[in-house]
Amino acid sequence: MNTINLEQAEKMIAAAKAKAKEIDTKMNISVVDAGANQVAFVRMDGAWLGSADIALKKAKTARFFDMNSGEIGKLSQPGESLYNIEHSNGGLISFPGGIPVTNDDGTIVGAIGVSGSTVNDDHTVAKAGADAF
Amino acid sequence: MNTINLEQAEKMIAAAKAKAKEIDTKMNISVVDAGANQVAFVRMDGAWLGSADIALKKAKTARFFDMNSGEIGKLSQPGESLYNIEHSNGGLISFPGGIPVTNDDGTIVGAIGVSGSTVNDDHTVAKAGADAF
Amino acid sequence: MNTINLEQAEKMIAAAKAKAKEIDTKMNISVVDAGANQVAFVRMDGAWLGSADIALKKAKTARFFDMNSGEIGKLSQPGESLYNIEHSNGGLISFPGGIPVTNDDGTIVGAIGVSGSTVNDDHTVAKAGADAF
Amino acid sequence: MNTINLEQAEKMIAAAKAKAKEIDTKMNISVVDAGANQVAFVRMDGAWLGSADIALKKAKTARFFDMNSGEIGKLSQPGESLYNIEHSNGGLISFPGGIPVTNDDGTIVGAIGVSGSTVNDDHTVAKAGADAF
Repeated sequence: MNTINLEQAEKMIAAAKAKAKEIDTKMNISVVDAGANQVAFVRMDGAWLGSADIALKKAKTARFFDMNSGEIGKLSQPGESLYNIEHSNGGLISFPGGIPVTNDDGTIVGAIGVSGSTVNDDHTVAKAGADAF
Repeated sequence: MNTINLEQAEKMIAAAKAKAKEIDTKMNISVVDAGANQVAFVRMDGAWLGSADIALKKAKTARFFDMNSGEIGKLSQPGESLYNIEHSNGGLISFPGGIPVTNDDGTIVGAIGVSGSTVNDDHTVAKAGADAF
Repeated sequence: MNTINLEQAEKMIAAAKAKAKEIDTKMNISVVDAGANQVAFVRMDGAWLGSADIALKKAKTARFFDMNSGEIGKLSQPGESLYNIEHSNGGLISFPGGIPVTNDDGTIVGAIGVSGSTVNDDHTVAKAGADAF
Repeated sequence: MNTINLEQAEKMIAAAKAKAKEIDTKMNISVVDAGANQVAFVRMDGAWLGSADIALKKAKTARFFDMNSGEIGKLSQPGESLYNIEHSNGGLISFPGGIPVTNDDGTIVGAIGVSGSTVNDDHTVAKAGADAF
């Protein structure tokens, strides 16, 4: 298995939704596969409309570079080595909330992106989703 | 209730997936709310990658004009009254597979879009999803 | 005076709205100035969401080529001289509903675009707006 | 009532225009509904052409995240938690001038965006429009 399938994506989304409710937030949640193509997406009732695109872009950013989206953001600051990398790929999102997902043999098979609250909350919910893989 | 919520969208997607399996197809399925913003999306395993965007555009097209996407396509043919309307709104998809969803009092509250097989199959699966609302 | 000002645009929109109500339709109405930049826009309650972009594109198309949008559509058909011209300018709309507006000395000073019903209705409402200039 | 209608949008725009004249500025003013779709727009005579798109993007940004556009801008600075969020949703505008609009029961039903002067003036005019709701 080299890529996330729909059953796994739905399991990840269910876990992320449960965590979002537990911490009393409303999230947009996106899962992409090894090809950085979206497998599944949900917007929880009342979640920010603008966070749908951000959730997807966080997931894509995490898979595009095989690291947490927030790691890219450290390098994209003024004066840093990847300054304004967000202009590539139709728009990256480089703050926390995007996490790559790895299978048992260490291969990255996709990513999850979450948006709708503080970046700490977004990352917490994304991690709950990633851990459910 | 004036717009589709996530629970309803998930119920619609579950019904659409069941129908897709019943007729042995692999589909991308998208549900948008009354504002034409995506609420939920799934790509079934092995479904065409290019159909993800098409499913969303079919759902949007159905809500943008409050009719089945295929109705737009009849009018957008060469020589017909809406020729090349597809160039609007960042790209419409005007063949069958997008269906608006109406609540009990006749208000259109969203739409479903399905892509991944023949347009007849796409419409059949979208209808199963819409009927589950 | 070489371009439509806001007072004139609002007068045109008021006349177009009145005509739309008279013929029992719900329209999106856009007015652009001599530079093809939007001066004013309204979406009547219940009008198609997808027609907002179309109304603007009809107005722009009419001003881009200083003729009714539907005239472009005759030339953009398969085999005709401007086949698929709709791909230019970020998307044209070439069916009726866009009308250029001319001042007393024959100078084109802007255009109006209307979308929301049949193309005949769209043109009728656009003409009512243009005549109010 | 869950979304701004045209009569309300026109009332908001009239109030915003009056305020713009009072403080001797020329503004672009946009109102979006609960689905972040534009309901009405005006560009006052002599207002900056480039501010039309900014007014719309400010209104959308305010509705996308249910807060004043300037609040997003505080968080999107270098080193802050939402750095470069402007790359999402086809382009956000994150400086002041976009304000969400809330109905009596606390539901956000749309937003207004204003652009054409200093951001303080833009915000003042947007507030006059929002208060007229």
